[in-house]
Amino acid sequence: MTQLEDFVERARLARLATVDERGSPHVVPIVFVYVDGIVYTPIDLKPKAVPARGLRRVRNIEANPRVQVLVDRYDEDWNRLAYVQLRGRAELIEGGEKYDRSLRLLEEKYPQYATLPLAGRPVIRIAVERMVSWGDFSP
Amino acid sequence: MTQLEDFVERARLARLATVDERGSPHVVPIVFVYVDGIVYTPIDLKPKAVPARGLRRVRNIEANPRVQVLVDRYDEDWNRLAYVQLRGRAELIEGGEKYDRSLRLLEEKYPQYATLPLAGRPVIRIAVERMVSWGDFSP
Repeated sequence: MTQLEDFVERARLARLATVDERGSPHVVPIVFVYVDGIVYTPIDLKPKAVPARGLRRVRNIEANPRVQVLVDRYDEDWNRLAYVQLRGRAELIEGGEKYDRSLRLLEEKYPQYATLPLAGRPVIRIAVERMVSWGDFSP
Repeated sequence: MTQLEDFVERARLARLATVDERGSPHVVPIVFVYVDGIVYTPIDLKPKAVPARGLRRVRNIEANPRVQVLVDRYDEDWNRLAYVQLRGRAELIEGGEKYDRSLRLLEEKYPQYATLPLAGRPVIRIAVERMVSWGDFSP
């Protein structure tokens, strides 16, 4: 794993940008795992009242699968600022081997899922096509 | 100032999402100030080699002024997660009263600018039309 990939995978939070059907951007914080060029993020940080498919990010992805994930680091020492943009294509997965694996990886990374079961929740799978980075990535 | 606005203004970093001419999203971390429904963010976190007008975020805004700014809070206690989306229209300003004021506000918020002069750098001004929030905003 490269230093960049390590920086991405260790981040606790990222941001997912999508575009709606009128061409407006939409960006939300996400928990996620990154493995082998793929970002997985579950649909789980929203009021239970909204069905997954009604979520703005899901509707956007269905209309336009091009997304960008941002992982960044802020530090009051601006020499240590850094960010990585992961550009790729997103799809919703709800079952199968990749889906099951993504749930296991999310549960390993986030102990919070021990009491907040992921089973049955759709996952956004993003195949990363390009990574663009800026800044200092030393730990 | 509302609790939401206070949460926004106190954040040290936000993320700015724009859309490029092909309809793909773009998102970068930004330093910023928020005052009276306006977000100001300077063009300054990039290699000096790129002229401001050549920056992706600037070209995107000129083609499509609809942007979204995200301010969020992560905490390992997920009951404390929170975010605010600020949806609005962006324009580049390079002089005048609003420009001068934005530089003063940025210098007040970020002591880093004492040694990293802002004078002459363009500023993105975003008139916020809508704020959408989620989570717990208690300090």
